[in-house]
Amino acid sequence: MPHLTIEISENTRLACSQEELLDEANVALLASGHFEESAIKSRCITLNTFRIGVEPVERAFIHARLHILDGRELAVRQAISKSICEIITDAVRPEPNGSPVQITVEVIEMERASFTKQVVAPSK
Amino acid sequence: MPHLTIEISENTRLACSQEELLDEANVALLASGHFEESAIKSRCITLNTFRIGVEPVERAFIHARLHILDGRELAVRQAISKSICEIITDAVRPEPNGSPVQITVEVIEMERASFTKQVVAPSK
Amino acid sequence: MPHLTIEISENTRLACSQEELLDEANVALLASGHFEESAIKSRCITLNTFRIGVEPVERAFIHARLHILDGRELAVRQAISKSICEIITDAVRPEPNGSPVQITVEVIEMERASFTKQVVAPSK
Repeated sequence: MPHLTIEISENTRLACSQEELLDEANVALLASGHFEESAIKSRCITLNTFRIGVEPVERAFIHARLHILDGRELAVRQAISKSICEIITDAVRPEPNGSPVQITVEVIEMERASFTKQVVAPSK
Repeated sequence: MPHLTIEISENTRLACSQEELLDEANVALLASGHFEESAIKSRCITLNTFRIGVEPVERAFIHARLHILDGRELAVRQAISKSICEIITDAVRPEPNGSPVQITVEVIEMERASFTKQVVAPSK
Repeated sequence: MPHLTIEISENTRLACSQEELLDEANVALLASGHFEESAIKSRCITLNTFRIGVEPVERAFIHARLHILDGRELAVRQAISKSICEIITDAVRPEPNGSPVQITVEVIEMERASFTKQVVAPSK
């Protein structure tokens, strides 16, 4: 926790690698002051089979889902959502004759009372 | 928004392509009258590593998750869920000696107050 | 229903196959007494692009999301979450000089009132 998933339609051009995008997102999540460094986990999923709308035009999108434990104030969820959205927006490289890229960020509260965690340490 | 994800176990036979299935779903979402055309985003994920139940028989499944912003009435969520389920059901091709295919649809309300969106336009 | 998704960062070493892990999880879900055998559906997703924290050290993680229909007691969600976490923890093989592996389990309640299900039987 937190768990960030960034879905990227395969026709999206980024100005950095997906790994670098995740690095920036993790830095922002840490800077929020709400999360422990080692607990911040993020991943990118490239979408190969997708459709946007119904019209025959090319469009692209990135959707981020941030799962955090419940109990934080709405203002915190809003600030983090905006922060992640800005990082992703900055990472998208607009191109001449390119497709518009829609960026959306969704925050999901995980039930703290039923959340479970364990850590398996390396053997000695 | 809306964001539709259709997971398909790899042993499922469809009567159309995954892209065509997404097209039909998007048309239905638009026809509901609740969503803006260009904002409807859907994707298929093929599941290669899955298990259904515990018995040694082959089974298949498709699971759809529809994320929509909160604030709509239950009757709307029910109607859209049923509509997506029917489209998927119609797309599954039953085969002699094939596996039964379970189709399920889950509607998830996204917190509107913390949802963020940006659009990156093509450069000029 | 239930729908279990186990995300595994690609640097995680398991003592069994992903299929065997899913088999064990399904057995535990059935043993809970809350689910119909044929309705238990689980899948593994290997994560190839991920980041944990911001420090330049190698870490690994497994995150499980269990979606169950709403209406069960918290104690049930807690017990199932713990059970899934234990199964995953037991499946992780600690190695000398390996990475610590964080295992987390999140339970998500699906809205029963808008959940839809159909089954397509084999043709005759």
